[in-house]
Amino acid sequence: MTIQNILSDLAASRQTREALYQDFHRHPELSLQEYRTAERIEAELRSYGIEVLRIGKTGVVGVINNGPGPVVAMRGDIDALPMAEQSGKDYAATGVTQLDEATGQQTPVAHTCGHDVHIVCLLGAAKALQDHRQDWSGTFLAVFQPGEENAAGAQAMVDAGIVDKLPKPDVYLGQHVLGTLPGGAVGIRSGALFSAAASVEITLYGKGSHGSMPNLGVDPIVLGAAIVTRLQTIVAREVAPRETAVVTVGSFHAGSKSNIIPDSAVLQLNTRAFDKAVEAHLHEAIERIVRAECEAARSPRPPQFRYYDRYPLTHNHAEPTARVRAAFDAYFGEDSVEMAPVPASEDFSIIPDAFGCPYSYWGLGGFADWKQAPGNHSPFFAPDLQPTLDRGVEAIIVAASPWLIGGVQ
Amino acid sequence: MTIQNILSDLAASRQTREALYQDFHRHPELSLQEYRTAERIEAELRSYGIEVLRIGKTGVVGVINNGPGPVVAMRGDIDALPMAEQSGKDYAATGVTQLDEATGQQTPVAHTCGHDVHIVCLLGAAKALQDHRQDWSGTFLAVFQPGEENAAGAQAMVDAGIVDKLPKPDVYLGQHVLGTLPGGAVGIRSGALFSAAASVEITLYGKGSHGSMPNLGVDPIVLGAAIVTRLQTIVAREVAPRETAVVTVGSFHAGSKSNIIPDSAVLQLNTRAFDKAVEAHLHEAIERIVRAECEAARSPRPPQFRYYDRYPLTHNHAEPTARVRAAFDAYFGEDSVEMAPVPASEDFSIIPDAFGCPYSYWGLGGFADWKQAPGNHSPFFAPDLQPTLDRGVEAIIVAASPWLIGGVQ
Amino acid sequence: MTIQNILSDLAASRQTREALYQDFHRHPELSLQEYRTAERIEAELRSYGIEVLRIGKTGVVGVINNGPGPVVAMRGDIDALPMAEQSGKDYAATGVTQLDEATGQQTPVAHTCGHDVHIVCLLGAAKALQDHRQDWSGTFLAVFQPGEENAAGAQAMVDAGIVDKLPKPDVYLGQHVLGTLPGGAVGIRSGALFSAAASVEITLYGKGSHGSMPNLGVDPIVLGAAIVTRLQTIVAREVAPRETAVVTVGSFHAGSKSNIIPDSAVLQLNTRAFDKAVEAHLHEAIERIVRAECEAARSPRPPQFRYYDRYPLTHNHAEPTARVRAAFDAYFGEDSVEMAPVPASEDFSIIPDAFGCPYSYWGLGGFADWKQAPGNHSPFFAPDLQPTLDRGVEAIIVAASPWLIGGVQ
Amino acid sequence: MTIQNILSDLAASRQTREALYQDFHRHPELSLQEYRTAERIEAELRSYGIEVLRIGKTGVVGVINNGPGPVVAMRGDIDALPMAEQSGKDYAATGVTQLDEATGQQTPVAHTCGHDVHIVCLLGAAKALQDHRQDWSGTFLAVFQPGEENAAGAQAMVDAGIVDKLPKPDVYLGQHVLGTLPGGAVGIRSGALFSAAASVEITLYGKGSHGSMPNLGVDPIVLGAAIVTRLQTIVAREVAPRETAVVTVGSFHAGSKSNIIPDSAVLQLNTRAFDKAVEAHLHEAIERIVRAECEAARSPRPPQFRYYDRYPLTHNHAEPTARVRAAFDAYFGEDSVEMAPVPASEDFSIIPDAFGCPYSYWGLGGFADWKQAPGNHSPFFAPDLQPTLDRGVEAIIVAASPWLIGGVQ
Repeated sequence: MTIQNILSDLAASRQTREALYQDFHRHPELSLQEYRTAERIEAELRSYGIEVLRIGKTGVVGVINNGPGPVVAMRGDIDALPMAEQSGKDYAATGVTQLDEATGQQTPVAHTCGHDVHIVCLLGAAKALQDHRQDWSGTFLAVFQPGEENAAGAQAMVDAGIVDKLPKPDVYLGQHVLGTLPGGAVGIRSGALFSAAASVEITLYGKGSHGSMPNLGVDPIVLGAAIVTRLQTIVAREVAPRETAVVTVGSFHAGSKSNIIPDSAVLQLNTRAFDKAVEAHLHEAIERIVRAECEAARSPRPPQFRYYDRYPLTHNHAEPTARVRAAFDAYFGEDSVEMAPVPASEDFSIIPDAFGCPYSYWGLGGFADWKQAPGNHSPFFAPDLQPTLDRGVEAIIVAASPWLIGGVQ
Repeated sequence: MTIQNILSDLAASRQTREALYQDFHRHPELSLQEYRTAERIEAELRSYGIEVLRIGKTGVVGVINNGPGPVVAMRGDIDALPMAEQSGKDYAATGVTQLDEATGQQTPVAHTCGHDVHIVCLLGAAKALQDHRQDWSGTFLAVFQPGEENAAGAQAMVDAGIVDKLPKPDVYLGQHVLGTLPGGAVGIRSGALFSAAASVEITLYGKGSHGSMPNLGVDPIVLGAAIVTRLQTIVAREVAPRETAVVTVGSFHAGSKSNIIPDSAVLQLNTRAFDKAVEAHLHEAIERIVRAECEAARSPRPPQFRYYDRYPLTHNHAEPTARVRAAFDAYFGEDSVEMAPVPASEDFSIIPDAFGCPYSYWGLGGFADWKQAPGNHSPFFAPDLQPTLDRGVEAIIVAASPWLIGGVQ
Repeated sequence: MTIQNILSDLAASRQTREALYQDFHRHPELSLQEYRTAERIEAELRSYGIEVLRIGKTGVVGVINNGPGPVVAMRGDIDALPMAEQSGKDYAATGVTQLDEATGQQTPVAHTCGHDVHIVCLLGAAKALQDHRQDWSGTFLAVFQPGEENAAGAQAMVDAGIVDKLPKPDVYLGQHVLGTLPGGAVGIRSGALFSAAASVEITLYGKGSHGSMPNLGVDPIVLGAAIVTRLQTIVAREVAPRETAVVTVGSFHAGSKSNIIPDSAVLQLNTRAFDKAVEAHLHEAIERIVRAECEAARSPRPPQFRYYDRYPLTHNHAEPTARVRAAFDAYFGEDSVEMAPVPASEDFSIIPDAFGCPYSYWGLGGFADWKQAPGNHSPFFAPDLQPTLDRGVEAIIVAASPWLIGGVQ
Repeated sequence: MTIQNILSDLAASRQTREALYQDFHRHPELSLQEYRTAERIEAELRSYGIEVLRIGKTGVVGVINNGPGPVVAMRGDIDALPMAEQSGKDYAATGVTQLDEATGQQTPVAHTCGHDVHIVCLLGAAKALQDHRQDWSGTFLAVFQPGEENAAGAQAMVDAGIVDKLPKPDVYLGQHVLGTLPGGAVGIRSGALFSAAASVEITLYGKGSHGSMPNLGVDPIVLGAAIVTRLQTIVAREVAPRETAVVTVGSFHAGSKSNIIPDSAVLQLNTRAFDKAVEAHLHEAIERIVRAECEAARSPRPPQFRYYDRYPLTHNHAEPTARVRAAFDAYFGEDSVEMAPVPASEDFSIIPDAFGCPYSYWGLGGFADWKQAPGNHSPFFAPDLQPTLDRGVEAIIVAASPWLIGGVQ
């Protein structure tokens, strides 16, 4: 009963998995429109003899019940991005487009965030576990999650009843291929890993007037400027200096002509925090300041706040993360590293939070020349095939081992 | 030799002038595209036996040389506005459109600023002077000026050589029909009458960055907000409290998404002042503050300033205005009133300033129910036919009388 | 019955009045501590045979009942300033000090605002009227008012019952010697003459903290800065551009050390307006903005507002001012001029407002070399003895003449 | 050759050391005026048979040359604070005052930062090393440093030539008794431990004017407010979100009266950073913003910047800190903890930086009831006598052991 046994077919299956990866890579699909992707995943799982549940439109879960023991869920996200790939790879998704159901427009699509790696590694790990049932005990759930890029897919699986349809995991695991770790390394840390993020659209109301008669109006541009200026005090004065928090006003739009005072202004803000209480404070402070400035300006209507693109905090639980880290250290040696928090965001934690179970998430280095690697979401992002695909399978088996084979080793 | 003699045909010609007015009203034309209007003016003047000069594409001057004596120029502006009339008059320009040569788009047009009144009153006065040459002496110039609404027409006549083509006036006169004076009244004041106005488009340069990494960028929205806020000190602290000055930021546009820090922002400002030195100070202060704030923000490129829609100050000269006022008082009695400065703007003064001659400009009340009158540029603006059209002719003759018949009366 | 008769002793009494002036000048006294001054005024009036009332501690009124006819009150203020005179005049109040009853400190005192001129001119006019009772008819009230400089003296006379103790005037007159008019000229205007003024002390509450832990406090300096910045929008955006209004923050005090966030800040503001509604708007806007900014900052306690040094608007009534102006024009010819509004303030109007009677106030040029004249409150302020002292007597008689001799002239 | 041998007299000497501590505690002295303290330290060292150097007025170094091997310096700071102790201890310095040589004023003094603990622990460790010379080899320097509280004492010893008078240490050690660690625990961390701190006094120049005539002046309060507001952008936008930085404006003083615009304003700022480059950025940004805002305001003179109370960053070197930590772990077990960075500041690093040698600094928990412990500089601060005094001696011997006995153990 060892990790090595479970992974003993890795070399033999390498070519098959690479071909599978290239197939997914050539067929990227937009968030919550991963129809072909989900079909293919389901077909693969079934071909391995694994039981499959569809949860929601494009969510897929492979379930391996293998005797008594802990339940381990592993998440792989499956969607691509609305952009044109420029990686130059021979398996690049050149010229691939998809009809965006939201806009009705045909749009380019590409796997420029590496979710295809996640799919194939999770399929590989599931097959290895299925093929070596004698080497472990417990339950393994391979959770193929749609819609990470629009922060809607994990919630969609929760809304579709994932909590009722699956046993509660003892641990919920996840991984992401990155250019910010050495190629082939696995990186993890306890605590805050990805920031909580949210966007807020704020509509401010003034009163229009001719530009030469400001006294007859309420100037929403002066109001908006006061707000933008005053918002700087949140990070500078209200948040503890050692906390990491960001309040960005990414757009400010008001008015059409120099000599007309407009009657409204629209600001779009983005917030980042590595602590839920800090994020709550940011939003409370934004609303407090905006409302107060509107009163200062005698704004004729209360401001409107619309929150969107909300990503939860990804905050690795200490106990399972320590177990994963110890397993990584033992198996990968120097390739097991400490990972720094990343100011990006993930919807990963929504499902384990819905289950009420702990989680742990790690990064997987995807580029030998990682110091020069393109960032995720770059049109040039395309990880090295190897050792990435092998390493991603190994990482899953190793991370799950403290639960699935740890007790019986 | 009296005013009364010159005006003796007023009643007899009334119907003809009203019909002429309705014709112009039904055929409004955009600024510097007053082709039919100029043709009609020229034809009228020639039919009165008056010599005509075309100055520029649509500028028309009628010249009456009538022996020794002062030269009096009277300006009537002739263009209409790109909007749909909603006056409900039976002679309304309903449904009239014109091809805007600048945009290539067909646009509605209407005489909602009353320039058609100005045309007909000036034609009427010219005819009266031509028909009663024995009652005055000197030279009368009827200056039909295009393009007031876009601040380009007076300059166009200057560029086309008006100064060289006409004798230098001893006084340059003008009038405007308004809803802010009692119907039938003439109002004038010495000194500042219409504000100087200018628009400034300011482009601010930042450095784009992901919204979660403000330290890698230079935020042009925070910079723009600082500028808008700081600009308030110009009127509040730098301009003398008794001066009238306005600095309005009419538009602020930057950014496209909440989580992207954009690399530039564009502000459009409008300034008003009743004194050239004050206007110069406003512009100096705006540039000073914008440049300094860009330095404070470590902006990577200097800001750009583009001035447009500049209107000069209309500041009635004291001596000729006193003469006009005395003539108005004597002729109109209680209908001759003091006019308050108006925060609107005019390009009237450009031509007399080019000549280096003094000028005087007055308002003409156009509505019996003036307290309820629609403002100029309102789609409902349409002055009462009478006494407006008569009174506008009388006002010209009376205002010119101190020069043309004053010495010989 | 003529002005000339009443003023026929002017030359003969000149030397006496100059000596009297120098005596007052050498004995300046602080606001509401004008003990010797009031004694001397009372003694003078009694020596002229005029009935005297003391109203309040240092208020003095001389009453001349002279048959049927209107009641004219003329005000002269009598207090000096807490500063050392540097005029260099041989009659300068060099080294004069007085115990300030409010602070318990000995302080220098000087007549650097010319109230001693007002005293002597009013005494001179009262004596002339008393000596020439056959030349006019009605009642003359010579109101010697204390405490103008601290805005408390007119109110003190109202509180002491002036309205019940004197007949209601038909007109209440006043004058001030100034360096902003040509020497010997009298200047008047209908409407706003002196601004309404008020001071407001605002205490802002924060929460103290070590400077390295701003999140544990509420920073009252950042709050105060936001307020000062935001207050600029009142004059720049809320007040009509043609109105004259000023909001000055004259002092800002907070904190004792660079690394301690203090728990409060104190601002002192001064406002000026030439219209009661505008002043009310300024104060409403200040309170609105301060309260809102305190909310934006999550200030732990509401801000406190203390109003002080409030001066009412001095806004000459049109009808009596027209009568005074006509009398000035007739008597003084070219020395009767239009006076521009002054951004200084006066408590003059408090008494006529308490009576509910109209008032008119004029300026008296006090310096031949007026273009170089020191301003009121300058340590160098000392008007020319003549023609100032004569002209000030004449101005009172002439201004009162439409009521006292106008009807019978 | 073991730590245990060196510390074998700890129990026997306990009472003597406690009495010594109480003596120092009862005789606190101000920074750089530690005359009695230095005398007593010198006398103690000599009584142990240790060679003594005086470096500067009140700096004392005990030197133990004990054969070949590394040079270890241990710093203990010795000064007290200008405040009245309120600890209620029977050995409290109740009523103790000292003449402050800087101000000429008698001021209360108290050891409310625990430097007396540092003295006695360092004396105790030096005596133990001197008494057990056979158990270690190398050189030990006991550096008693004056003037930590005013950031001037370490520099004073450098100025007095400490680098030339002593051998270059292989490591420079230090400790501080704190209420933020569990009682008896020792805490250390590699990297940033105490922030770099600096104060900046900024004088801004305006132009005075009467409050009603802002146009004649340059308002330094509006300027100061703009600066305070704009400074918030440094931490909010310019510093990387994961960095810890603070810019506090701790005092703002300008003006004396509501209606006088003053001619200057004075701000006092304090900055904190855990990285030298970040601190340099803060100061560059402060100066950039202040200068630019002065230009925006047309300030008549450049602003003045005066830096004071500068504390360097305390940033433990990785290699010696790892050795100290390992020694702590081995000796103290669970009482050896990781210490979090502290937003306070120290001048500790000035001497090792002058030597060009690495350093390591740790905290010593001083209160059993540490969750309720008063902060350093509180008038109630008075650590438990034990185990603090014992533990402080042990910590020094253990920390030095990798150098002094590590190689030969």
